[in-house]
Amino acid sequence: MTSVYDRLRAIGIELPPLPPPVGNYIHAVRTGNLLFLAGKGVGEHTGKVGCDVSLEQAYAFARSTGIALLSVIHHELGSLDRVSRIVKVLGLVNAVPDFADHPKVIDGCSDLFIEVFGESGRHARTAIGAGSTPDQIPLEIEVVVEFTHLHEINGNA
Amino acid sequence: MTSVYDRLRAIGIELPPLPPPVGNYIHAVRTGNLLFLAGKGVGEHTGKVGCDVSLEQAYAFARSTGIALLSVIHHELGSLDRVSRIVKVLGLVNAVPDFADHPKVIDGCSDLFIEVFGESGRHARTAIGAGSTPDQIPLEIEVVVEFTHLHEINGNA
Amino acid sequence: MTSVYDRLRAIGIELPPLPPPVGNYIHAVRTGNLLFLAGKGVGEHTGKVGCDVSLEQAYAFARSTGIALLSVIHHELGSLDRVSRIVKVLGLVNAVPDFADHPKVIDGCSDLFIEVFGESGRHARTAIGAGSTPDQIPLEIEVVVEFTHLHEINGNA
Repeated sequence: MTSVYDRLRAIGIELPPLPPPVGNYIHAVRTGNLLFLAGKGVGEHTGKVGCDVSLEQAYAFARSTGIALLSVIHHELGSLDRVSRIVKVLGLVNAVPDFADHPKVIDGCSDLFIEVFGESGRHARTAIGAGSTPDQIPLEIEVVVEFTHLHEINGNA
Repeated sequence: MTSVYDRLRAIGIELPPLPPPVGNYIHAVRTGNLLFLAGKGVGEHTGKVGCDVSLEQAYAFARSTGIALLSVIHHELGSLDRVSRIVKVLGLVNAVPDFADHPKVIDGCSDLFIEVFGESGRHARTAIGAGSTPDQIPLEIEVVVEFTHLHEINGNA
Repeated sequence: MTSVYDRLRAIGIELPPLPPPVGNYIHAVRTGNLLFLAGKGVGEHTGKVGCDVSLEQAYAFARSTGIALLSVIHHELGSLDRVSRIVKVLGLVNAVPDFADHPKVIDGCSDLFIEVFGESGRHARTAIGAGSTPDQIPLEIEVVVEFTHLHEINGNA
């Protein structure tokens, strides 16, 4: 079985260090087989999509945010190979009021997850416009992940 | 026991064909006993609620979105009778900045779920204003559903 | 073991009566070990954060909203001591379009949860700007909580 890390190498992605949480929260919490990730927005731009930030730049920002989320999952679970499913993505775009292309922006993250995890990366999703964002980042993405417990992999508790 | 489909017939609702996802995502993902649905917004209007779209039109749009979500659940689970609970609704209204009646809008979906599922249709909910929406639809709704596994119904695995 | 109620007394918090839901929804739904709470916004202010409402006022509003959410959990589970983890917080701030300090606002709720529950109160979080809110409240917060079933506490079903 190909490891997720082989695929990351093949597409030239190196996991970045974890960004520190800005606020009194933590990156991720596990409950049962679900991992709830905190919203992230990581990349080179700030400002409103459809005005300060182009669709192409926003797509790239969503992809780099997805890479940061992979880094969170890697640190939290010890291995990305424990991801059994990307369940749900909530993509919040800091767009001008008449912006209409939120799906094309958040595809930057969704395309990445499918490249990296294959069919297990296909997820339910809501993409919507935020009225404003922390530090005026162009978007913020939160994810719910289903993972495999170690004793399920190893066959013992 | 009355089937959900009897109630749908009684109130004159026919499930529409599934709308295609606009973006690289899928309609729904199951994990454990939970079904996470992608956000949907389906109906006859576009524009800002409180300006281009009236409260009454937005309520109707929320109801037709709820019907589209029922269609997704039906296709995903094979039968709406497997729904054991509507757990959580997130209603995102594309409203003008001083709009205040989000609950009355999203009731269009909530009323439907309770008509169709009875007490199992009563859910926790957040209704809020989006800054913008895909294709300038008046609202988008996502839902978390609890369902019964077939082996739980049939008494065997 | 110190009860959550001892800590509430020590920091001078009295649980308020439950606010009635504004709309056709309920305060909370349980599924498995998870409690999904409806979004709440409770406090003394209305209007846009960054214009009508200051950062300090918004922080206080987030704290009083957190207290209202504690009241919901108390009523739903019978005891706050059954909370095993605050899993996820979604904080939606009714801010002006260039507002950037959402995390500092929602910390009002996050700080409270950690004061009250200790390490179990640490949660994943998304803080973002809404375009508008019900009744023009300054913010709305929804929470996912993990709880312990009574038979898990008592050692029998």
